[in-house]
Amino acid sequence: MEENNLTIEGRNAVLEAFRSGKPIDKIFVLDGCQDGPVRTIVREAKKHDVIINFVAKERLDQISETGKHQGVIAQGAAYEYSTVEHMLEIAKEKGEDPFIIFLDGVEDPHNLGAIIRTANQAGAHGVVIPKRRAVGLTATVAKASAGAINYTPVAKVTNLSQTIESLKDQGMWFVCADMDGESMYNLNLTGSIGVVMGNEGNGVSDLVKKHCDLVASIPMKGDIDSLNVSVATGILTYEVVRQRLNVVK
Amino acid sequence: MEENNLTIEGRNAVLEAFRSGKPIDKIFVLDGCQDGPVRTIVREAKKHDVIINFVAKERLDQISETGKHQGVIAQGAAYEYSTVEHMLEIAKEKGEDPFIIFLDGVEDPHNLGAIIRTANQAGAHGVVIPKRRAVGLTATVAKASAGAINYTPVAKVTNLSQTIESLKDQGMWFVCADMDGESMYNLNLTGSIGVVMGNEGNGVSDLVKKHCDLVASIPMKGDIDSLNVSVATGILTYEVVRQRLNVVK
Repeated sequence: MEENNLTIEGRNAVLEAFRSGKPIDKIFVLDGCQDGPVRTIVREAKKHDVIINFVAKERLDQISETGKHQGVIAQGAAYEYSTVEHMLEIAKEKGEDPFIIFLDGVEDPHNLGAIIRTANQAGAHGVVIPKRRAVGLTATVAKASAGAINYTPVAKVTNLSQTIESLKDQGMWFVCADMDGESMYNLNLTGSIGVVMGNEGNGVSDLVKKHCDLVASIPMKGDIDSLNVSVATGILTYEVVRQRLNVVK
Repeated sequence: MEENNLTIEGRNAVLEAFRSGKPIDKIFVLDGCQDGPVRTIVREAKKHDVIINFVAKERLDQISETGKHQGVIAQGAAYEYSTVEHMLEIAKEKGEDPFIIFLDGVEDPHNLGAIIRTANQAGAHGVVIPKRRAVGLTATVAKASAGAINYTPVAKVTNLSQTIESLKDQGMWFVCADMDGESMYNLNLTGSIGVVMGNEGNGVSDLVKKHCDLVASIPMKGDIDSLNVSVATGILTYEVVRQRLNVVK
């Protein structure tokens, strides 16, 4: 397990951190702020014996990493990275086929956060990112995940291809998203599956692509090259969800 | 037609603006920058008789609205808002049922840009936004749209509900996204359709929702409340695409 120091910013993110039982050390609240969500946060903080600092806006702006603190910043235990093994255990406990999202070099923290959020809602068991040339679990990622980071495990691996190969040995199938692939609607995406998405600019690398069993494309009728990677992940992931629900209409 | 003053920032966005024939007045290029994409942009600029200013990084940073200019900023004719009537004409010309995305108060420019990009790829005929309490076509939106803003019309209307009612009179159906709705997989989303998505925090307003024929939910298995709005738009929009393609697997 590896740790990051972390601040959690914004009302929803801080409330969600309390609700999910994350250990928080202290919070900074805009002095004089009396509206509902902030009072709820202060009440939660008191309940959990968290140190409460009422501070001026300038101080909050100074502490803030995202620039969007909405009058509340919490500092707490770091987000811990999980492991792929743990994701497989979760799937086993739930009696579900493993369903994991692999990101081959996503760089934008808003994209990573939105993807963790999607993974959570789609019922995926985790998100795997590479150690190098990719964004990790920062405060901006946590905020963009809308709290999903507290529930959906994220693992960081040294070599994405090796991880994929080792999971293929354990019976998982891998589908990567690429414009040159077969339409995702024509592929069987049920069973134990890893969905592999690429970097914002370059897509999935050739190295990683050649380890995948299937290459899926999202039908595109447009004048430009591609979709935003977090949107594309949502669309492909929900095609897996649809096929798992056995929707035949 | 209403106009915005606009700067276009970043290599892809500027190149795409040239490619799509947008009238550009002048460009600012990082002095001494000789790599491929920048040379292509300079060549395009010369071809189109565009004024080229080679400037220092400090000057680019100063002009930049997004903070991510990648050494190239173009200033040009503004993005023009289109009209709903024009979108219907486009659909008619293509011999397709109208397919339009309505945004009830999306505030984040990255979300609006990503949604315009999705609309373009999904083959939607346009995006409709309200005049009030919503982001308009800014430089950040243009960049996040990855050039789609040059192809997919965006209309700004005073009253979303009135526009919806008038389109219903012309035979369009409206589906809005809401957690309380029927699973989107169980709804018939073919034919002339408007997809209505809500604000980041509050979803679709009750006022707008009651004008919609159908309320669709995206199946969610997660621990948090919702998906990112641009991801949710992608998922629901592509369910329309799938049904239009008559995918029955």
